[in-house]
Amino acid sequence: MLLVGFGVVGQSFAELVVSEGAKLGRDFGLRPKIVGIVDSKGAACSPDGIDISKALDSKMSSGSLEKLGAAYRPGMTGLDAIQETDCEVVVESTPTELSKGEPGLSHVRTAMKEGRHVICTNKGPLALAMPALMELAHHNKVVFKFSGTVGGGTPVLDFAKKCLEGSDIRSLSGILNGTSNYILSKMASEGSNMKVVLAEAQKLGYAEADPTYDIGGFDTACKLVIVSNYILGTSLSLKDVQVKGITEVSNEHVDKAKAKGNTVKLIGRMEKKATVSPEEIPITHPLNVSGTFNAISFNTHPAGEITLVGKGAGGKETASSVIRDLIEIRRTFAR
Amino acid sequence: MLLVGFGVVGQSFAELVVSEGAKLGRDFGLRPKIVGIVDSKGAACSPDGIDISKALDSKMSSGSLEKLGAAYRPGMTGLDAIQETDCEVVVESTPTELSKGEPGLSHVRTAMKEGRHVICTNKGPLALAMPALMELAHHNKVVFKFSGTVGGGTPVLDFAKKCLEGSDIRSLSGILNGTSNYILSKMASEGSNMKVVLAEAQKLGYAEADPTYDIGGFDTACKLVIVSNYILGTSLSLKDVQVKGITEVSNEHVDKAKAKGNTVKLIGRMEKKATVSPEEIPITHPLNVSGTFNAISFNTHPAGEITLVGKGAGGKETASSVIRDLIEIRRTFAR
Repeated sequence: MLLVGFGVVGQSFAELVVSEGAKLGRDFGLRPKIVGIVDSKGAACSPDGIDISKALDSKMSSGSLEKLGAAYRPGMTGLDAIQETDCEVVVESTPTELSKGEPGLSHVRTAMKEGRHVICTNKGPLALAMPALMELAHHNKVVFKFSGTVGGGTPVLDFAKKCLEGSDIRSLSGILNGTSNYILSKMASEGSNMKVVLAEAQKLGYAEADPTYDIGGFDTACKLVIVSNYILGTSLSLKDVQVKGITEVSNEHVDKAKAKGNTVKLIGRMEKKATVSPEEIPITHPLNVSGTFNAISFNTHPAGEITLVGKGAGGKETASSVIRDLIEIRRTFAR
Repeated sequence: MLLVGFGVVGQSFAELVVSEGAKLGRDFGLRPKIVGIVDSKGAACSPDGIDISKALDSKMSSGSLEKLGAAYRPGMTGLDAIQETDCEVVVESTPTELSKGEPGLSHVRTAMKEGRHVICTNKGPLALAMPALMELAHHNKVVFKFSGTVGGGTPVLDFAKKCLEGSDIRSLSGILNGTSNYILSKMASEGSNMKVVLAEAQKLGYAEADPTYDIGGFDTACKLVIVSNYILGTSLSLKDVQVKGITEVSNEHVDKAKAKGNTVKLIGRMEKKATVSPEEIPITHPLNVSGTFNAISFNTHPAGEITLVGKGAGGKETASSVIRDLIEIRRTFAR
């Protein structure tokens, strides 16, 4: 396995491979060997397997993989590593970028062309080019999994595919961004001003220094594209989504909603068209989750409305999705 | 296929077989043929398949299957029908009974011994004898499915098995009875007295004339046994569950909880031991669902707490679970 991207998710995954290794071998016959790790400064490669604890230590203490000695290749890029490393699976977890989806998009494409199965936790390539990537995976007979892009460790994509068979999923709607939901929840419960809550969220690490991606609705839109394409069979890309973030939601708006027994939430919705916008929902609705929770509701026939709620982000949580994807790939191999 | 029990769930299932028939054939190669239907007064049997619309009409107009003419066998019992009918699958949906689990338990046992796959929506046999029935199914090499016993059309059992692989499920807790939840929700939102809400629920058809099974906590306990055995691998039966219903929950208790930002819910919980009792949970907790919704939370490692919310009952919803079980059996055949 080759890890391209060694940020929070990449490191959490590496930690899980160490801490859960015995269990994975015992329960699933899975013995993941990491033969390469790439970060923004270089790579570490070893056909016999990287010493994961050493890699984590090096990253922690020096911010790079330089302490891996002979295995370290300063300046080596993800693309180089994908082309030069012999492995079965490439895990792409570089940061999401939404103008061209790079470098993730090239990583995914190249890995598939090299015949590698791909697990992607980076939303950029999928938000911009999901139909083409699905096709490319099919053409190259590789498995392409991306459970970690939506819902963190909450198995949103798998749930709809594996558990709702035989039911028509007619539409879906969800709270897919923890940062926006944290801010709106605080505005509703404490009457706080958006700027104040945002500053607080940034301090707690729930919001980025540049919060546009989250509170502008783009993260929600990316996830909506992925969920809708995967579950409803649409062929959307980010440009097809009508996006409105929460920046214009006022305390007055929130209070008025409250007086009606409602609450304002940033909802990604796919019915006739794909939209992201602040909506009023009844406080008794299952989508009304607070804090950094994510939730997604499937309008199914004949089983009714079914909602899945869980932590939508977090390194360890998202890494657990990568593990599940790996189990699925292993199972596909075994057939 | 033989339907034993032709109440709300059995009839809804028969309706679904008609209305979704084309889709099931096209998408899953499934062409369910109902060769027998049994109710409390007799049976209708025909190796070429029962006319389902006629059976539904007969049941509706006369309360029995007598209008099926030559196919009708007045007085024929479920046991007789199971022994005399040549079929692949028996669907058991007679009413839940908790002292001896009959007649469901004998139906399930006999069907398995006859080499039939069994789909059971009746909680009695499972609450009382689930480990033995799992063993019997295994021994007779038949598939035993019971998705409809928990969560109605919400795929609670499948979710944990199919979507949480590779995650440890350390404990679970849930709101598993819609009637109790409806009553407690009304008490909290409107300050109404339990007796008043119960009478209202009975009028709306949400509660039975004898509400003991629901508000006494026994329905929740049955579902907890099934969920815990299936998902956590325990070998519980109903007698192992410590059960306390909602009959002693006062408006004072509800109001006090509210003042603390909490709400009182009837929770079935499996941690170190299996319990059913009214508990206070924060109003912001994902389990805080209102009305007749059901919800179940899985405490997983490392993916965190994951909650599934949906309608917990309803004929059509539960029948959709039977369809899913049938698809699963069909898939097992196909392998």
